[in-house]
Formats: sequence, structure tokens, C-alpha cells
Amino acid sequence: MERTLNFDHWARHQLDAVEAALETWVPEDAPAGLGEAMRYGVLDGGKRLRPLLVLAACEALGGSREAALRSAAAVELIHAYSLVHDDMPCMDNDVLRRGKPTVHVKYGEAQAMLAGDAMQALAFEILTPDEGVEPVLQARLVRLLARAAGHAGMAGGQAIDLANTGRMLDEATLREMHRKKTGALLLASVQMGAACGSPTPATWQALSVYGEAIGLAFQVVDDILDCTQASDKLGKTAGKDQEANKPTYVSVLGLEPARRYAQELRAQALAALERSGLADVAALAAIADKVVEREN
Amino acid sequence: MERTLNFDHWARHQLDAVEAALETWVPEDAPAGLGEAMRYGVLDGGKRLRPLLVLAACEALGGSREAALRSAAAVELIHAYSLVHDDMPCMDNDVLRRGKPTVHVKYGEAQAMLAGDAMQALAFEILTPDEGVEPVLQARLVRLLARAAGHAGMAGGQAIDLANTGRMLDEATLREMHRKKTGALLLASVQMGAACGSPTPATWQALSVYGEAIGLAFQVVDDILDCTQASDKLGKTAGKDQEANKPTYVSVLGLEPARRYAQELRAQALAALERSGLADVAALAAIADKVVEREN
Repeated sequence: MERTLNFDHWARHQLDAVEAALETWVPEDAPAGLGEAMRYGVLDGGKRLRPLLVLAACEALGGSREAALRSAAAVELIHAYSLVHDDMPCMDNDVLRRGKPTVHVKYGEAQAMLAGDAMQALAFEILTPDEGVEPVLQARLVRLLARAAGHAGMAGGQAIDLANTGRMLDEATLREMHRKKTGALLLASVQMGAACGSPTPATWQALSVYGEAIGLAFQVVDDILDCTQASDKLGKTAGKDQEANKPTYVSVLGLEPARRYAQELRAQALAALERSGLADVAALAAIADKVVEREN
Repeated sequence: MERTLNFDHWARHQLDAVEAALETWVPEDAPAGLGEAMRYGVLDGGKRLRPLLVLAACEALGGSREAALRSAAAVELIHAYSLVHDDMPCMDNDVLRRGKPTVHVKYGEAQAMLAGDAMQALAFEILTPDEGVEPVLQARLVRLLARAAGHAGMAGGQAIDLANTGRMLDEATLREMHRKKTGALLLASVQMGAACGSPTPATWQALSVYGEAIGLAFQVVDDILDCTQASDKLGKTAGKDQEANKPTYVSVLGLEPARRYAQELRAQALAALERSGLADVAALAAIADKVVEREN
């Protein structure tokens, strides 16, 4: 397994491509300020973890770059729309995101809701161009993304979250919530990238295990950072979970066990890469490291 | 052109099939009440105009029934989600829809927003099954629906609407708003149904003209009914447009000219069907009549 890679260099190159793609595909001229609100919600911000997972998985398989860039933009749009809606007063009522006022603070609640709705539609539009991606692959990518975004994935996880604020959860229920709320889309990112190539069933299986482990690790670390970092470092309001009395890995497991769990999940992810049979998994391995070691 | 048809019998048969499909595909068991809110938002209500257009167009072309039923359910889910979001306090703040409390009144704003989001994702999930619809057709249907639902279609039209409440519009701008806000999805319904068969370019073109005319006629009649019918007959709050000082075809054209315009659009739609080269357009013709003659 190849592990040498200038990851930062690789990531910067990929993120430039993703940003350029989003710049092109998220329309400046959508009517009545809608395009401006959409662009504000997705451009120039965030860690872009999901696009990096898509592109790293695609490269490991030697897959279609065009399909992967579209997948990266689409999955980021789904993630970004969920944040726009999540920040609204009827949900988390958050005013700060990525160090900037949230979309509804800047453009009003109605425009924020519409922008989120239009971002979701745009994700599926980007996956189904008139040409450049095989229709069979287009259908497969839409299938993966729609399932991950919907009731059995992200939206379902948010509903569980909503229903359990202020309630103590056991670890199994907490894991189920996060597997849907954030895990499904992270897993889909890996799988969409893989689908852009021609994975064997064994490779698909190994990358799926990797994606699930990354998804859980991301949330565990998120919970740790929410209670250990200051808002200015996070670029969003820290301590929100605790304040809202939301169950987190820290509140359920304790801080040190949560840290150990994150390390365990990284080890699981790396072991899955070893089993994948792929030669070039350096970027995927580096992402696993980043997810666990990040400070914001 | 065949015009004899027991339309009510035909429509009842189709709507039973659509209702059964939605019953199957909109999940009862989505987490934490999300499925219940989604089902409340889409089952057992509405005129189902969009599904009827899909199925009538597909039958006129002799297309795939499975693909058309999926398209009918998907387009209705997009329509229904837009109503759920549109009714929320930050948008139209409506408490009555199809004679029942709106989704946010019944389940709360957060759940209503999530249910709408999940309904949009489900639409694209339904269009991309593991089997039963050719992947090339899946991709085409997603492409049509995503474009109609997003910034260049429905969501864009809603943004124009939002920006112009309380402002007088000229007829051209009003038409542009409605062409996006309601017209795009009605046109997509016809086109998705047609895509389930194998239309010639000339047939595609004629059906598109039909779909555009139906889309505009629907909105003109909607505006007429909003100012001439009582709430109990409409099943939603009447006079809302006037109260909110929204520009409508009635406020821009006047009541009688709006009625004449609706008749003109019906004539355009029927003329397009004559040009379509299709033998069996009785259901499409009957829908044009219904759209213009409806009383709610």
C-alpha cells in the first residue's frame, strides 16, 4: 500500500478544481437573488471533505475525472444545503457558519429555504449532464446520492436528532443517528468516487467499510471539538451541542473514551484500505488521518 | 384525433395506481416520525394533475408503464414538497391545505422542513431503481425533473414571486415568473411521460408546446379561482393572493381578459395535440379541458 504523498499539495490541487467546478455550475444569474444565496451557501468555505473523498476514491480506481468532479460538486451541494436549512431558526437557529453570517441571516429565511431547495435540485442536475458522463453511470450516481440524502440517510438522521435533543441516548442509538445524519453522505462520497471507476465487488466492499469508519470517526471528532475548541477556531458556534443538551459521543462515552474510539475507527479505515486490493490509496489514507487529527 | 374517452373513469383508474405507488414508495417507517410527515404531505390529497399528465403522455406514446408510474410519483413528490415548504411561516404562512392543517401546523416547522427535503430526495430515488427502468431512461428522467425543480424552474419562480410580493408586474414578467414557478414542472410532467416512450422530434416539440400552454392556463385559472371562490370550495385559504398583494393574472389583466386568456391557452394546447401526429391524445385533450373548466 502506497502511503507516500504530499497530501496538502494533492488536496490543494483537487480543491481548486472543485471550487472552479462549483463556480461554473452554481449559477450567478438564477432569478431574484436566488443564485447569489446559493453561491453564498456553498462557495469558498468548508473543509470539502466529501469532495476530497470522491476524488481520492476515483483516483484510486483510475475512474472518470469528469464524473468524479460532478459527483464531488453534487455531494458538496447536498451537504451545503443541509447546513443552510439546519442553521435556520426552526432548526438549530445558528447565526455563524464557516466564520460568516449564516444564509438566512444574510438573505432572510424564505430565500434561505429556497436556496437550500434549489441546491438539492442542482446536485441532481449536475449528475445528469447532456453529455460527458455515461448515462448508466449517471443513474448509478443519482441512486447513491438520493438514497444517502433522503429519509434513510441524512434527512432521516436529522429527524432522529431533532426528536432526541435533550434526551440521553445509548451508544447504539447515537451511532445509528450519526450513521444516517453524517455517515451516509460520507459513505456515499467514497462510493460515488469508486463508481466512477470499475471496482470489483471486493474493492467496493472494502471501500464501503472505509467510508463507514470515516463517517463515524468524523462525527466522534466533531463532538470532541465542539466541547474542547473555541468558536473562532471552529468557524462556527462552539459548545452548541452541550448548550442544546444534545447527546454526543462525549456526553455518552466521556472525552477520553471518545478520543480512543476515534483512533480505533481510523485503524479500521486503514485496515480496510489494506484489504481493498488497490495500489494507490495514499490520499484515502491521508484523509483518514486528517479526519481524526483535525483541530476544526 | 381521438377525443372520445370516459375521462373520469380513466382518471380514477390512473389515480388509484398513483396512490398505490405513493403508498408503497413513501416510507411509513422513516425515522422519528419523518415518514409520517412525508406521507401526510403527499398522500390522499390534491388533484394529481402532474401525475395525470405524465401518464396520459406516456399512454399516447405507448411508453413504459413502470417508468411512467415512477415519474408520476416523483413529480408529485416535488410538487408536494414545494407546498410543504411554501406553507411555512417564513414563506406564505398558510395553515390550511387540501382542507387539512398544513404539515408544519401538524408536525412542527423543523419536521416540515425535513419532510420537504426528504420528499425531494425521494423523488430522485424513485426515478433510479435497481431495476425495472432502463438506466438511460432513468438518467433522462432525472435530468428533466431536476432542471424543472431547480433554480431555472420551480425554485427560481418562487424566488421571483418572493421578490415581487406587493409590487405590480407587467404581463411579461408575470408570465416569466409562472413559467418557472408552476409551468416548468407541468411541462416536465408531459415531457417525462413522453420520454417513457420513443417520441419523434416533431412529437416531442408538439407535446412541449401543449405542456407550456397547460402550465400557463393552470396558473391563470388558479388566479381566477383565488379571487372568485370561497376557501371551503378551494380546500385552501382563498383570497390569499389579494391579501398578500401578490401580482396575479386577474390583477394585471382584469377578470374577463384573464378568462379569455385561459380559453386561448386551451385552444393552443389542443392545436398542439393535433400537430403531434399521435393517434390517442384523448386523455391529454380532456386534461386541457379540465384545467380550464375546473372550479377548485
